[in-house]
Amino acid sequence: MELIKDHLLTPALVVDLDRFDRNLSRMAAHAREKGLTWRPHAKTHKCPEIARAQIAAGATGICAAKLSEAEVFAEAGIRGLLVTTAVIGRLKIERALRLARIAADTIFVVDHEQNARDLSDAARTAGLTLNVALDLYVGRRTGIAPGGPAVALAQAILRLPGLRFAGLQAYAGFVSHVEGFEQRRKASLEALAPAVETRRLLEQAGIEVPMLSSASTGTYNIDSEIEGVTELQPGSFLFMDLDYRRIGGRGTERFTDFEMALTVLATVVSRPEPGKAIVDAGFKAFSTDKPYLPEARDTPGVVYGFAGDEHGRLDYSQAGRELRVGDRLEFFPPHCDPTVNLYDRIYAVRGERVEAVWPVAARGMSQ
Amino acid sequence: MELIKDHLLTPALVVDLDRFDRNLSRMAAHAREKGLTWRPHAKTHKCPEIARAQIAAGATGICAAKLSEAEVFAEAGIRGLLVTTAVIGRLKIERALRLARIAADTIFVVDHEQNARDLSDAARTAGLTLNVALDLYVGRRTGIAPGGPAVALAQAILRLPGLRFAGLQAYAGFVSHVEGFEQRRKASLEALAPAVETRRLLEQAGIEVPMLSSASTGTYNIDSEIEGVTELQPGSFLFMDLDYRRIGGRGTERFTDFEMALTVLATVVSRPEPGKAIVDAGFKAFSTDKPYLPEARDTPGVVYGFAGDEHGRLDYSQAGRELRVGDRLEFFPPHCDPTVNLYDRIYAVRGERVEAVWPVAARGMSQ
Repeated sequence: MELIKDHLLTPALVVDLDRFDRNLSRMAAHAREKGLTWRPHAKTHKCPEIARAQIAAGATGICAAKLSEAEVFAEAGIRGLLVTTAVIGRLKIERALRLARIAADTIFVVDHEQNARDLSDAARTAGLTLNVALDLYVGRRTGIAPGGPAVALAQAILRLPGLRFAGLQAYAGFVSHVEGFEQRRKASLEALAPAVETRRLLEQAGIEVPMLSSASTGTYNIDSEIEGVTELQPGSFLFMDLDYRRIGGRGTERFTDFEMALTVLATVVSRPEPGKAIVDAGFKAFSTDKPYLPEARDTPGVVYGFAGDEHGRLDYSQAGRELRVGDRLEFFPPHCDPTVNLYDRIYAVRGERVEAVWPVAARGMSQ
Repeated sequence: MELIKDHLLTPALVVDLDRFDRNLSRMAAHAREKGLTWRPHAKTHKCPEIARAQIAAGATGICAAKLSEAEVFAEAGIRGLLVTTAVIGRLKIERALRLARIAADTIFVVDHEQNARDLSDAARTAGLTLNVALDLYVGRRTGIAPGGPAVALAQAILRLPGLRFAGLQAYAGFVSHVEGFEQRRKASLEALAPAVETRRLLEQAGIEVPMLSSASTGTYNIDSEIEGVTELQPGSFLFMDLDYRRIGGRGTERFTDFEMALTVLATVVSRPEPGKAIVDAGFKAFSTDKPYLPEARDTPGVVYGFAGDEHGRLDYSQAGRELRVGDRLEFFPPHCDPTVNLYDRIYAVRGERVEAVWPVAARGMSQ
């Protein structure tokens, strides 16, 4: 029997394949046009099937936020992995070696000399060579200070046996959601200037820099204009969400470069008062880390409010229609990545037909 | 080799078994003393192992928030299930019948006559009898209006073949977190008065009411004083969290009836600036639905801030000690239920020793 949307038990995570396909093609075309590699961030989708589609569309591989996430992709046959958080501690380093045995081209990031030494010792003992990139501090999160400290760490890496210097990562997460294209452009250029300068200093010191990986969905068409950036690592563009939609595009109030492709399908399970309906999707069905509420996709005037772990409360008094127990509605999530991380599968839908069921194989892999 | 806390890859979800055991014993003693049944809410822990421990301590069964959650517990051999959200739609009703075949004493809730008819039709066709309780609307979430409408629905259930009337559920979730014991007591008494009155009306109409299930962790010792309440369904008391700690107890500023037993173990992965450290636990490691931040358990002066999906930023400038890359810290989560729902397992720890690893078997089961 053909699977259709009406057969799905709710809450269910749904991707609109027409929109998804267009989002993927647009990013592929952008990277091609700019002559850059792109290594989309798989922390957004956590699905090997989607990683394969990205690589088929021209991506050079994928980024994984954590080691355990990268392991899932490596075991599924995905290559070209960049693990964007440093691998700290003996136990994780042992697993990094196992990962490198499966997927030799994996790149690990380092921002701390002791960690480089630990990786080197372990790699040498195992008879392996690990690819390591410098994680540069461009504000707010992880990384080594750009300039002198980064050059010194690169030189240390070059001296250490068992390590191969793979270049630079400079990810300015806090810039991604700056509202207004021009403000965002200014913030990203400022944040990345020290990274570009570090690249120049390394080259001046005779060190080849094969990669400078940067950019989020919010800066994909900003960082791609920066001389010295070689690679884009956006993630959310595939699905989009309410948090990205509001940031504004080049000359547009909303960010419409990519389409809102991800929804949560929910069912009205109770109608306790006139004009009020309760759906079966609450804190465990949507991200809650942003100050936005889920938004009904095809039902204008329906206002969602959280009603605890398991429920949402809809005010449909302005919707011009009744909602009844059993009605099914789709909602855009506030933030795509943590929403996906709540589900075991994504239903890939075209019209009413479910064309594929993608296991979120790396769900929960935050280690 | 003995598993110790130091062996865990982080972020890891950890329960302090000494505290957990005391929390469990305290609730068991309270229910015994009051002569009430207790059916703890398993949406908090989602672990069959914990459900078994609760039943061994005297619980009459467990509550499950949704059908798919109940299925996991039934398949693990747990009996005495109460599914606290109505089962709506043909597909879910078919699965409810399958569940009732496995665990015949399961109780389903109903707040809508058409749903009662649908359950009756399906049960009759299958040759089964389903236990159904009325879900009463005591404010903000699901349920049928108390009083006349509830009595009419109970009478309809009694007339419908294939259904057995199991009593009442009256859950006032919005009362659970009212700050101050006296204010909370007042709010709960007000919210539940119509439920108690409905019970009286049903008995007046000659309808036996075997159960009135109510109470959260915040009202366990309030609702147990209400004449007519027969059963408590608290969940969070086992683990506790920052959101419950602040509500205050009987004569205490903090709610200390139960101990803070649940933590997330995280590792410092970067120290990009003096006084600042980045840990590997962010939006995907902690609940984010409450306006509280994770709190360091044994490291006073360390202040946690979210730094995106995968990271947290610690300010340790007031901690009187250094934090170094590789240091491991434990944090109390803001809200236990949605935190547990992010993890595949709970490490049950006594001192440094991991005594058990409990699969969060119903994780993600929100359907």
